[in-house]
Amino acid sequence: MEPVLANSVRLDDDGVLILDRRNFPFERTWVRCTTVAEVAKAIEDMVTQSSGPYFATLYGMVLAAREARDLPRDQGREHLERAGKLLVETRRTNNALRKAVAAVLAAVDQAEDLEAGALEGARQGDERYRSRSRALGEHTAALLPDEGTVLTHCWADLYLTETVKAAQQAGKRLRFFCTETRPYLQGARLTAETLAEMGVETTLITDGMGAAAFAEKQVDVLVTAADRVTMDGHVVNKVGTLGLAVAAHAFEVPFLALVQAPDRLAPTAADVPIEYRPGDEVLHTLGRRTATDRVRGWYPAFDVTPPRFVTTVVTDRGAYAPDRLAEYYDSKDVHD
Amino acid sequence: MEPVLANSVRLDDDGVLILDRRNFPFERTWVRCTTVAEVAKAIEDMVTQSSGPYFATLYGMVLAAREARDLPRDQGREHLERAGKLLVETRRTNNALRKAVAAVLAAVDQAEDLEAGALEGARQGDERYRSRSRALGEHTAALLPDEGTVLTHCWADLYLTETVKAAQQAGKRLRFFCTETRPYLQGARLTAETLAEMGVETTLITDGMGAAAFAEKQVDVLVTAADRVTMDGHVVNKVGTLGLAVAAHAFEVPFLALVQAPDRLAPTAADVPIEYRPGDEVLHTLGRRTATDRVRGWYPAFDVTPPRFVTTVVTDRGAYAPDRLAEYYDSKDVHD
Repeated sequence: MEPVLANSVRLDDDGVLILDRRNFPFERTWVRCTTVAEVAKAIEDMVTQSSGPYFATLYGMVLAAREARDLPRDQGREHLERAGKLLVETRRTNNALRKAVAAVLAAVDQAEDLEAGALEGARQGDERYRSRSRALGEHTAALLPDEGTVLTHCWADLYLTETVKAAQQAGKRLRFFCTETRPYLQGARLTAETLAEMGVETTLITDGMGAAAFAEKQVDVLVTAADRVTMDGHVVNKVGTLGLAVAAHAFEVPFLALVQAPDRLAPTAADVPIEYRPGDEVLHTLGRRTATDRVRGWYPAFDVTPPRFVTTVVTDRGAYAPDRLAEYYDSKDVHD
Repeated sequence: MEPVLANSVRLDDDGVLILDRRNFPFERTWVRCTTVAEVAKAIEDMVTQSSGPYFATLYGMVLAAREARDLPRDQGREHLERAGKLLVETRRTNNALRKAVAAVLAAVDQAEDLEAGALEGARQGDERYRSRSRALGEHTAALLPDEGTVLTHCWADLYLTETVKAAQQAGKRLRFFCTETRPYLQGARLTAETLAEMGVETTLITDGMGAAAFAEKQVDVLVTAADRVTMDGHVVNKVGTLGLAVAAHAFEVPFLALVQAPDRLAPTAADVPIEYRPGDEVLHTLGRRTATDRVRGWYPAFDVTPPRFVTTVVTDRGAYAPDRLAEYYDSKDVHD
């Protein structure tokens, strides 16, 4: 079964519909955006996250092309350019938004009709992201046991759903543990719900329980996405990944980190700036305070797992040991 | 400054006052118990926890003695015995309650007046627990840097407050990180607030951020209480301790585990049954659901840290390497 989060940004004749992940799964409401400005605002307001902004940007560009329908071509092209800047500005550290805009503009420049070109570029960008995630999911599923338990952290989005789909198609029977992933509870709200939707037996734990699960041999493999993997095998992902990876290593549980491709612009961890979010975000849960204002919070959004704690990096081209990531780019067919 | 939680069970002429830790620090309300049955109910309802039930049991026995004021001695003694059973039954895995009851009954049996004996026994039990915690705190403070940052987990109660007091008296300038300690947020609500009350600069993190703090060299030492320490150096404490200990070890941060005495009844970890609480408790935060009912939770209340991840066990008699705990009992003056 296709879970709702795997297709949560949708284009129709009236605009772009974006599933509101802020209240999911307790409410399932969709935000309708009829202009590119509304799409940008929705991304900025965190209506969607993870791979959601990438898809929203693709289809936001289609809305921009519709807005430019009656303009001369050069003015229409300028409108698209401005729209792209607006969208990229919503999340400046998210490289995927730049790629989405570039994909649409490239298709526009090769098409006779601006609007048809934008739609074609968006469709191609959508399909390319999905097919690469599908390949990554298939390579990951091949490494999982026929019957066993996976622990995952935060929300790995299409990497997770494609892995589960591929495992199910291969007849593997997996159970999952998910960490709740404070402070925003993406694990409890997005991952656990989506796994349950896909018919997977799912157990939720707090962020401090992973080591106990490993020590008690409840878990066969740790699997997380990576926001970035450096060329020397450092895995940058949602804070909490490092602690789980270190504990998995201590209790001999393998750790698979999933990323479409290692990042050629980041030879090592020093090349990846870590985002620190306002510490105050740690002092709340579901909108209620957890501590008084005598206390301050600290919120590194990501942590960096050194390669000694990483067993395998799984990409759309297959699995690599963390010290052999250069081989990813040995192929002539370089697309990233 | 003496923080409120260091003296949160109080006897007066009208009964026992117990600070309600369930809503602390957002509300500071006290539950008044005028009978031993009300004390038992308050413990059962989790009005207080950690060392709170020990003190509540001591003074609950004094209320029982008052209730028996007009009875013949043997009937009064029987009433006290029944009261003790009632109190111990509220938390069957908590050894401290048995010790509290035994302390009061022993004093009663040596006193002419039952009520005076109970009061004397309770005062002695109170002072003994405090003086042992004070000794433990002094030994711990001696191991801390003159200026540095401590990471602690959950709520170490008097072990923590006595350590901080001793460090302050020695002129040490410490800062603290505390984990929030899901699902009940004892770290955010009890530890962080109490440290702030004591004038300590305090930073709250989620349970998944400890490893990042160690890796970034934000922390000089990990300090937690232990519910039990086995004679071969396994540390049994609130779930989450293991993951922090493993991460501290990986990044060369020492881990001090605090316990008044190692447990002679537990030669090794197999002798300590782990309490599993209802998984449903993981699916809530501050009374609100974090996941839908498609998902189940798993809640091991404690985890077990093997001695290879423990640097030092600090007791009321000083510090011991985890493989030398037998030396604790070498002294003639055995009191546990």
